[in-house]
Amino acid sequence: MTFVVIGGDAAGMSAASKAKRDAPDTEVVVFEAGEWVSYGACGLPYYIKGEIQSLDDLVSVTPEEFREQRDIDLRTGHEVVAIDPDGKTVTARGESEVVQEYDQLLISTGAAAVEPPIDGLDRDGVYTLGSMADGKDLREYVSRARTEGDLQQPDSGPACEFLETCNGPVGVVGGGYIGIEMAEALAANDFEVHLFQRGDRLLKSFSEATSEAVLDHLREQDVAVNLGAEVAELAGGDRVEAVVTDAGRTPVEMVLVGTGVSPRTDLAEGAGIELGETGAIAADEYRETSISDVYAAGDCAEADHVVTGDPVHVPLALTANRHGRAVGQTIAGNPTKGGPVAGTAAVKAFDVEAARTGILDHETARDAGFDPVTGTIDAKSRAGYYPEGGTVRVTITADRESGRVLGGSLVSEYGEGAVHRSHALVGAVTEGVTLAELSNYDLAYAPPFNTTWDPVLTAAKVLDGDR
Amino acid sequence: MTFVVIGGDAAGMSAASKAKRDAPDTEVVVFEAGEWVSYGACGLPYYIKGEIQSLDDLVSVTPEEFREQRDIDLRTGHEVVAIDPDGKTVTARGESEVVQEYDQLLISTGAAAVEPPIDGLDRDGVYTLGSMADGKDLREYVSRARTEGDLQQPDSGPACEFLETCNGPVGVVGGGYIGIEMAEALAANDFEVHLFQRGDRLLKSFSEATSEAVLDHLREQDVAVNLGAEVAELAGGDRVEAVVTDAGRTPVEMVLVGTGVSPRTDLAEGAGIELGETGAIAADEYRETSISDVYAAGDCAEADHVVTGDPVHVPLALTANRHGRAVGQTIAGNPTKGGPVAGTAAVKAFDVEAARTGILDHETARDAGFDPVTGTIDAKSRAGYYPEGGTVRVTITADRESGRVLGGSLVSEYGEGAVHRSHALVGAVTEGVTLAELSNYDLAYAPPFNTTWDPVLTAAKVLDGDR
Repeated sequence: MTFVVIGGDAAGMSAASKAKRDAPDTEVVVFEAGEWVSYGACGLPYYIKGEIQSLDDLVSVTPEEFREQRDIDLRTGHEVVAIDPDGKTVTARGESEVVQEYDQLLISTGAAAVEPPIDGLDRDGVYTLGSMADGKDLREYVSRARTEGDLQQPDSGPACEFLETCNGPVGVVGGGYIGIEMAEALAANDFEVHLFQRGDRLLKSFSEATSEAVLDHLREQDVAVNLGAEVAELAGGDRVEAVVTDAGRTPVEMVLVGTGVSPRTDLAEGAGIELGETGAIAADEYRETSISDVYAAGDCAEADHVVTGDPVHVPLALTANRHGRAVGQTIAGNPTKGGPVAGTAAVKAFDVEAARTGILDHETARDAGFDPVTGTIDAKSRAGYYPEGGTVRVTITADRESGRVLGGSLVSEYGEGAVHRSHALVGAVTEGVTLAELSNYDLAYAPPFNTTWDPVLTAAKVLDGDR
Repeated sequence: MTFVVIGGDAAGMSAASKAKRDAPDTEVVVFEAGEWVSYGACGLPYYIKGEIQSLDDLVSVTPEEFREQRDIDLRTGHEVVAIDPDGKTVTARGESEVVQEYDQLLISTGAAAVEPPIDGLDRDGVYTLGSMADGKDLREYVSRARTEGDLQQPDSGPACEFLETCNGPVGVVGGGYIGIEMAEALAANDFEVHLFQRGDRLLKSFSEATSEAVLDHLREQDVAVNLGAEVAELAGGDRVEAVVTDAGRTPVEMVLVGTGVSPRTDLAEGAGIELGETGAIAADEYRETSISDVYAAGDCAEADHVVTGDPVHVPLALTANRHGRAVGQTIAGNPTKGGPVAGTAAVKAFDVEAARTGILDHETARDAGFDPVTGTIDAKSRAGYYPEGGTVRVTITADRESGRVLGGSLVSEYGEGAVHRSHALVGAVTEGVTLAELSNYDLAYAPPFNTTWDPVLTAAKVLDGDR
């Protein structure tokens, strides 16, 4: 039996490893267009920031380890250009062209950074962050600028904080995870950061109250945040010189464009595999596509939402790992569902942390047949008398009639537990728990960790009383 | 309508406040034997440690506020000495004796520190930590010893850490929350701490793997932990001079006895109210006792366990607050169940944190009809490449046949999220979730907070594979 995998990141390598481990007789072939496999793309902003020293640190398992220890036929530098589902072959191009037969196939081609309709994206100094190569380029830019800055300002370094700015102004287009994490990475390297967000708030999939807290914090950190700022052009000559919006022209020396990702579906479409309404590859509970023996998992594919049951496209690392692993088990003869997603996400933004899960958007909730109601509370992160605490802001969205918890969004100082506390809300959303039930949860309490009622309980209790 | 409350701490004041708020016409009378009400006894170790400056800081609402702002007839310094359920009166002694009629009565008399069968408990220098007064005494002892130490060793203070010890040796009897928190408080004040635990591990309600991690950490912190150490005597003259066990005699200048608490049930028993098998006051889902119109909540009462449905006595702050509040709602005409408990608890021990929930003990699980299996994993608390992470150790106990999660226990460095991550396991235990379901939870992930699979997911996945 031959199991072929297209794409060697989280979903692909999880599937390959699990299939090989559970059914060692299976021949497992992985084609990866680039040179890197199984890498933590989520760590790139911290590499660019300078907190992680080497790109290699982001790699959990090396190509050699996959080949030698896990006995996987991993072919890096091989781009698959066609799938023939009738002949059950894929065609890949590396140093030469290879036609590989398969019994079972996994498409895990991931997602690519969206190129928004902005003039000047091709100018030098304009970056996206979609790959390890992008990360490398950005780190080089940051290091170079820093060195040059040091030369011009010999007393930079510790003294640097007293200057208006050490490195030139830079632009970040997009106020999602990547935009915010990159704003942190650039500001930490003494760039003057201008962030442009088309919509009226940052982190639009989080609650408005969370967005507001993150916005306030970014501004405290001297990030110039421009909301409702549609970027018309990245102006300049060969090199970018300014971000142009309705509101005017902001001179910059570099721009990071982080306006989301879109699933890589060309190969699947070429093979006649159906896409879903979201534009990502449609798949059943076992991650099998419209064509038998062809699976899809990870950022290129849809998943079912745990509240609505509807297909959604939420390209995040855990789902890719989980669904990839489930496909590996299925291939090995143990049919395993990938499981639904709750759209849970977390982000660190300078010294705050935030998480969200489930359905917060009222329109989405109404479309799914709910009558949504949302409440937000601010609560102390530790007992009021305990030293060094902060504030946890918790938003919950629930169904007015039944009280069912539909989604949640939390924000706190970094280390004060907004993200880990969201675990309670993920469970509530997944199990269809009501506000009354949640507010009766016997959550852990001690003064160094929360008030007697954890903020999650207080939020549930208050919204239950108000709905 | 008159609602009388006996005992003015968490359960009593929650009930009084909620009843008065929801039904302002109710006359609410609270008798409290001491002078303090609504205080955070959980904060006492941190007051003794010196991190909290005043006992007043532990009080969330003052007696004056209860009287003036909440219109509650709060009578401190009044000890109730009898309940007459036929005449529906209670007799209280303060400056004079009062006979108070009631329509509804709440017994929230709390729990008292257990006095173990050890000779010499009455010697000077032997303390328990059951009340604000105890906390005051201990703080005075610690401050005084410190001052005397300073006089003897003029270079103590910062230099103190280079000395073998600054203050004399002290003993802590008991290796539960109080014993461990007090060991931290005393060690932080430069006492040489000797901890004596009768059983073979600390924190016996947590998993063995958690106990082991906490033990290792306490020893790293130079606490002399003696396991299997049955204390026979606290020897000395007027003042305690040594802790005596089978293994010998340890000279000490002071001893803190923290060997648990027992429910204060004398009043209830005197009135003919039934106790449960645990020895605490039995109550139904609405917290009503065997006598109509008499309720019991907080540390003096039983509660139903969320997994077994059996009555248990788990005297902790959240349950007291929650059940007190439910009684207040019921009194106000909105019958409200108190809700079950999961036996969830959290503790900080020096620089580690730990939490536990549900059923971990195999005998208890078997008695409830389960076939328990337990697994423990160690996992990184943040992405491997992210700076400054630690280790989260997760233990899960589940039913072998069904895979149902019965309980969990976690430990990590302080700030690395063992306690807040336990929220996921509280939900799983409460909702009867299986290991397979839990391991498919879409928990929040980003590199500063966890590995792609949060340690809780990994623990569930591994145990599900091994059972």
